[in-house]
Amino acid sequence: MSEVRDKTLRAKAATRAMNRLTTEQKNEALLAMADALIARSASIIEANAIDLERGRANGTSASLLDRLALNGQRIEAIAEGLRQIVELDDPTGRIVEETTRPNGLHIRKISVPIGVVGIVYEARPNVTVDAAGLCLKTGNAVVLRGGSAALESNRRIVAVMHEALARTSLPPEALQLIESSDRSSVDEMLKLNGLLDVIIPRGGRSLIQNVVQNATVPVIETGEGICHTYLDDEADPAKAEPIVINAKVQRPSVCNSMETLLVHERYAGAHLADLAAKLRDLGVELRGCAKSRTLVPWMGEATEDDWRTEYNDLILSVKTVSGLDEALDHIREYGTLHSECIVTEHAGRAETFLQEVDAAAVYHNASTRFTDGFEFGYGAEIGISTQKLHARGPMGLPALTSTKYVVHGSGQIRG
Amino acid sequence: MSEVRDKTLRAKAATRAMNRLTTEQKNEALLAMADALIARSASIIEANAIDLERGRANGTSASLLDRLALNGQRIEAIAEGLRQIVELDDPTGRIVEETTRPNGLHIRKISVPIGVVGIVYEARPNVTVDAAGLCLKTGNAVVLRGGSAALESNRRIVAVMHEALARTSLPPEALQLIESSDRSSVDEMLKLNGLLDVIIPRGGRSLIQNVVQNATVPVIETGEGICHTYLDDEADPAKAEPIVINAKVQRPSVCNSMETLLVHERYAGAHLADLAAKLRDLGVELRGCAKSRTLVPWMGEATEDDWRTEYNDLILSVKTVSGLDEALDHIREYGTLHSECIVTEHAGRAETFLQEVDAAAVYHNASTRFTDGFEFGYGAEIGISTQKLHARGPMGLPALTSTKYVVHGSGQIRG
Repeated sequence: MSEVRDKTLRAKAATRAMNRLTTEQKNEALLAMADALIARSASIIEANAIDLERGRANGTSASLLDRLALNGQRIEAIAEGLRQIVELDDPTGRIVEETTRPNGLHIRKISVPIGVVGIVYEARPNVTVDAAGLCLKTGNAVVLRGGSAALESNRRIVAVMHEALARTSLPPEALQLIESSDRSSVDEMLKLNGLLDVIIPRGGRSLIQNVVQNATVPVIETGEGICHTYLDDEADPAKAEPIVINAKVQRPSVCNSMETLLVHERYAGAHLADLAAKLRDLGVELRGCAKSRTLVPWMGEATEDDWRTEYNDLILSVKTVSGLDEALDHIREYGTLHSECIVTEHAGRAETFLQEVDAAAVYHNASTRFTDGFEFGYGAEIGISTQKLHARGPMGLPALTSTKYVVHGSGQIRG
Repeated sequence: MSEVRDKTLRAKAATRAMNRLTTEQKNEALLAMADALIARSASIIEANAIDLERGRANGTSASLLDRLALNGQRIEAIAEGLRQIVELDDPTGRIVEETTRPNGLHIRKISVPIGVVGIVYEARPNVTVDAAGLCLKTGNAVVLRGGSAALESNRRIVAVMHEALARTSLPPEALQLIESSDRSSVDEMLKLNGLLDVIIPRGGRSLIQNVVQNATVPVIETGEGICHTYLDDEADPAKAEPIVINAKVQRPSVCNSMETLLVHERYAGAHLADLAAKLRDLGVELRGCAKSRTLVPWMGEATEDDWRTEYNDLILSVKTVSGLDEALDHIREYGTLHSECIVTEHAGRAETFLQEVDAAAVYHNASTRFTDGFEFGYGAEIGISTQKLHARGPMGLPALTSTKYVVHGSGQIRG
């Protein structure tokens, strides 16, 4: 039997015991995992050094090496993340609906764990702990398949968590790590209908698209964000400028950062040259449409490809539009249903934008960077869904639950 | 451009107008559709006659011809179904969550239409009206792809509904029927990511499995039901017998009927012979395990295949088990997560069963036949989900909605 099938079967077998755990037992297990990560941090850093060395030898970029690297402080932060999950309400076991039918049937719809959750992700070893904590807190078993660049780190981290779990009521087999770095191990996970209840991809576009295109198991699509900010002709420059700068510059590598700025032609005439210069001074490369370039001649030229690109970098495409309708058309054509913003003092146009734009999060006069489980007050996040089924936008713990109808009767039959 | 892509693009274009409709406008449109179906019933019956004639010429079974056949009374019932949908609450536009963050951001999570819903189904033309009504009431555009056996009926029905919609505020283009009876038209729908937001298959196992196995668009899996009833040794025969007979005999062709009876050996010793004889007298063919056949020698033999078969017919497999654990193991191995029942007067064992069995609906002392949107009080049903994401069990109108975060700020940026 393959590693993937074997470990997923073990995870599935563990769901029985997981279903019976109390919130306290799950919390104790998460705290034990956090303590063990701190206690064994030297060992984890040792394993991480092997990954880093191999990465350097393979010519891995400095920014990727930085994402991969662990030290005492980072392990403290990872353990602290688990402790924060402990503090969150347990979303399982809740009565979502309750009714007694005229025939006397008593029907309760109860929130339950999903079952076995598969997570496919890339190099950052903190995801290993974070995803494990979120899935186990919600009573799910979890099968992790991290990137090969972090394999030694992930192995050690999971071994440490397994040791910790062995001293708790939570079955260690509920946490599985696929160690095969072969791409076929991902392909196999994607087809495990009946064993895996859902797969959540976390990573870049190619990882996510591979999962979406090839999975027969249900998927929650996350992450890709070509986010727009539209500056209306009644935008207040005192709000528009900080919002644009924040959405682009504060953390350009993430999905909720802005990729395209849409500017009403009147606002552009008055303010674009100044705003563009400020962005340039902050290190942003600008690529504009023809109209924008007549106003800011030093700007590079935006091609059709630019409107379709999630730069995740200090690059911004800029389009000057004739008004709200053209902005809406552009977003409809190029948006990824993630986060979209209008800056305006005109209430009616703001309402139209919020109503018409089809996205997980729509903003009036605030940075798109707020699309995040912590910023929304959920205290944790398993990802940001860009699909419309099951969960949309930042996913907190409830996104890791399903429901079940529990029906009590006294001999009722259907007439 | 293919018919499928062209019509789906039109449906998507119509979602803008759909989003702006009030509940009253949607209800007026549904009532206009209902009135038109009645007014034009002669024309619909005429088209249906062509389908029936072709079906007879092709040697279609009498039961399939019956499902396909329309008459005045059936069209009245179909129109009445639309009027019932009008009476239901509109699940869109609801504030699901609302919060103001410490930084002043005002965040509302609002229920919205999903967008464009694809429905792939088989011969029954009533589904054409029912699915259209449910999708339009929830503000969605819908792309219908019915079976070729009902093509003339579906064409005429949709033409009548289009005429009716043209006199209302609801854009007729929100309702699309794929007329190509080529299997490739289904295959094309399954891959329309970005145009179709979800596909819901309604039909038999092979139709559903084709969709699940080949779709890259998100799917809500429905329907397959290998449902079990477990008679505990403390089952009350006065409840057990009517529940078993109802679950098997009342309507064997549907997914919530029982396919396998599990019987505690003590209960079997006392009651199985009698119960089996009653089922036989009702026309049920019984196929038992070795233990069951020692008690009821005239019973046929159940093979491994029987435990895995959704008969949808007057056939029942019977297994005598040593107790609750063996029953749970059997359901875990062969169940389809649909509907499962325990009959017992023992509260503790009932609780264990309800807790441990992983299914959309679990029953204590009631027939599995109740897993149904109408029986649960939802007033309508777009299908019964057997997956765990988005919706599980009978799906009423809320299953056809998504959510959207609408965020109002006053210039907030992320620190």
